[in-house]
Amino acid sequence: MSATPGTHMKDEIDQQPAVFADLLAAREQIAEVAAAVAERRPRFALLAARGSSDHAALYAKYLIEVLLQLPVGLTSPSTTTLYGARPDLTDVLLVTVSQSGGSPDLVAVTESGRARGALTVAVTNTADSPLASAAELSLDICAGPERAVAATKTYSATLLALYLLIDAIRGGDGAHARALPDLAATALDESRDPVEETAQRYRFAGRLVTTGRGYSLATAHEAALKLAETSYLSARSYSGADLLHGPVAAVDNETAVLAVCSAGLGGESTREVIDAVHQRGAEICAIGSAASKTPASHRIPLPETAEEVAPILEILPAQQLALDLALARGIDPDNPRGLQKITKTT
Amino acid sequence: MSATPGTHMKDEIDQQPAVFADLLAAREQIAEVAAAVAERRPRFALLAARGSSDHAALYAKYLIEVLLQLPVGLTSPSTTTLYGARPDLTDVLLVTVSQSGGSPDLVAVTESGRARGALTVAVTNTADSPLASAAELSLDICAGPERAVAATKTYSATLLALYLLIDAIRGGDGAHARALPDLAATALDESRDPVEETAQRYRFAGRLVTTGRGYSLATAHEAALKLAETSYLSARSYSGADLLHGPVAAVDNETAVLAVCSAGLGGESTREVIDAVHQRGAEICAIGSAASKTPASHRIPLPETAEEVAPILEILPAQQLALDLALARGIDPDNPRGLQKITKTT
Repeated sequence: MSATPGTHMKDEIDQQPAVFADLLAAREQIAEVAAAVAERRPRFALLAARGSSDHAALYAKYLIEVLLQLPVGLTSPSTTTLYGARPDLTDVLLVTVSQSGGSPDLVAVTESGRARGALTVAVTNTADSPLASAAELSLDICAGPERAVAATKTYSATLLALYLLIDAIRGGDGAHARALPDLAATALDESRDPVEETAQRYRFAGRLVTTGRGYSLATAHEAALKLAETSYLSARSYSGADLLHGPVAAVDNETAVLAVCSAGLGGESTREVIDAVHQRGAEICAIGSAASKTPASHRIPLPETAEEVAPILEILPAQQLALDLALARGIDPDNPRGLQKITKTT
Repeated sequence: MSATPGTHMKDEIDQQPAVFADLLAAREQIAEVAAAVAERRPRFALLAARGSSDHAALYAKYLIEVLLQLPVGLTSPSTTTLYGARPDLTDVLLVTVSQSGGSPDLVAVTESGRARGALTVAVTNTADSPLASAAELSLDICAGPERAVAATKTYSATLLALYLLIDAIRGGDGAHARALPDLAATALDESRDPVEETAQRYRFAGRLVTTGRGYSLATAHEAALKLAETSYLSARSYSGADLLHGPVAAVDNETAVLAVCSAGLGGESTREVIDAVHQRGAEICAIGSAASKTPASHRIPLPETAEEVAPILEILPAQQLALDLALARGIDPDNPRGLQKITKTT
C-alpha cells in the first residue's frame, strides 16, 4: 500500500518511456523467439489472455493478421479448462499473454496446446513464472515489478513486446518502434493539461462510452477497463462498427464518449462513428494523433506514429485520465475495492 | 412503425417456439451444408459477424471448439476491409453470420476469404441476400421477416441453426434440440411473472452488469446489448473470469447484476463470480435452469436442457425483460433512437 493515494500508479505511468527503452535494448531475446517461430512456419495463430492482457492480445490479433497474413483468433480458456476441448493444434502458433504469468487457466491452455502440437509462446513480465515455464518459448516484457493494482506499464510494454515480436517474425527491424521512448515522454508531458481538464469534466459523469477501430480498438477496451477499475465509472467499450449496430441508441446528451482517433485507416473510419454520436448530443473527447482534426469538445493530441504502433502511445493519457479521475473522486487507485493483483480463475 | 409501442418486438418474441419448430423441420438444408463442410475436413474455423450476430458467432465458437474439436477464432472484418489483410485460408472454414445478409463488410470478408481458399458458409435470414450469394454454402435460418428493430427471433434462430449445423457436421442428429419448441413455449410462459417483477425492480437502475461463462457468455453479451438498445440502460457485459480481473471494482450496492446460470459446467463456474459480486453488495438476478439453486434476490428459472443448447432458451426472458423495461420507462422499442435495421459499416 502506498501512503499518498495513487503513488504506485503514477510512478508506473511515468516509468513507461524508460520501460520502452529497456525493452528496445533487449531486442536480442525477441529476435531469438521470432526466429524460432518463423522457422516453424505456423499456418494459424491463437491468442489467450484475461483482463488487460486480453486487450494486448486483441492488438496482437490485428498485427498477426495484417503484418503476418495469418488467420488468427482469440481463444477462450474455458473451452479447455471447463469443457476439455482438445483440438489438433499442428501448425498453430499459440500465444498466451499474462503480466504475472500466474493464471492457472492460461497455464492449462498452454500445457494442453503444447501437448497437441501447438508452438507455444508465453509473453509475461515474470521470466520464472509457471506460464513461462509451461511454454516452449517465452518473452520477457522487462517492465520491472508492478506494484500498482491497475496494470499500466505492463500493458504498454506487452503491446511493444508483441509488436517487436510480430515485426521480427516477418523479418522487420522494429523501425516504427524506435522513437517510442521519446514520443512517450512527449505524450505524457503534453497530455497532462488536457487530461486534467477532461478529468475535471468527467468528475460527475455517469456514463462513458469508449470507441475505436482497427488497431485502436484495443485502446478503447483498455481505457474503459482502466476507468471502470480505478474510478468506478460505468464505462462501456465498443468497436465503432458495433456501436452503430445497436448500442448507439443508449448514447445521448448525458453520455461522454472517449474516441480514439489516430492518424491512419482506423482513425479515419472512426469519423463516421464520431459524427453519429455527435448528432445524438454526446460530448466527445478525442485521444490520438488525429485528435486535433476531430470535431470534439475535448482533445488529447498525441505525437504521430505509424498506425500499427499508435496504441502503445494512445493508452498513456487514458491511464493518466483514470488516475486523475479516481483522485478527483476521492478514490485511491492503488487500493481498489475487491481486486487482487493475481486473479485465479479456472 | 407499430401503433402500440413494442408490438413488433413482442410479436417476434412470442413467435420463437414456432420459429424453432420450422427450423427443425427444415433440417434437410442444414444436413446438406453440414455434409459439404464435413467432406472438406477443415482444420481451422473463423467466424465474422456484427452486433447480435456477433454474439451468435461467439456461441458457435464454443460449439466448434468443443463439439468439432477445431481451433477457432472470431475475425475482425476491418482487417480485410480497412487493412487489406489477405492471409492464405486453405483448410479454413469461414462462417459469416448476418440476419439481413446485407452488411457490405461481411460480403467483402466472404468474397476475399473465398478467393483465398476458405470454405465459406453464410448464415442469414435472407436466402437471396448479397452475403448468401457471396458464400459457397449458405444456411437460411427460416425465421420469417423481422419487423422489430431489435433482433429477437433471428438471434435465437441463428443460435439454433448454428447448433444444428455444427452438430450435423460431427454426425449428430440434433437430439438435444428437438424439445426446444415446447421448452421455449414453457420458458416464455413461466418467466412472464418473474420478468415483469424484475423489470419493475430495474426501472430506476442506473448500472447493470451481465455475466456468464462458457456457452452462456453469448447470452450475457446479447442480454446487455438488448437492454442497452431498447431500454437505454447502461448495461455492461463481462465473462465471469474477466469480471473478477478488474471490473468487479466498479460493482457495488448500486449495481444490478444479471447472471446467466444454467445447469452444467459454465453455470457451475459462474457461482464464484456470483459470490464475489454478492459480497460487494450487488443485487443479483439469476436467469437459467440453475437459477433456483443460485443465491439471488430475483430468479428467472428456465427448463433444463443439455448445456450446449441452453443459450437458445436463456435469451428469451432477457428479451422480454428488455421489452418490459423499455415500456416501463416510456420508450417504444420498435422506434429506438438512432437505429436502422441494416447498419452499413465498411
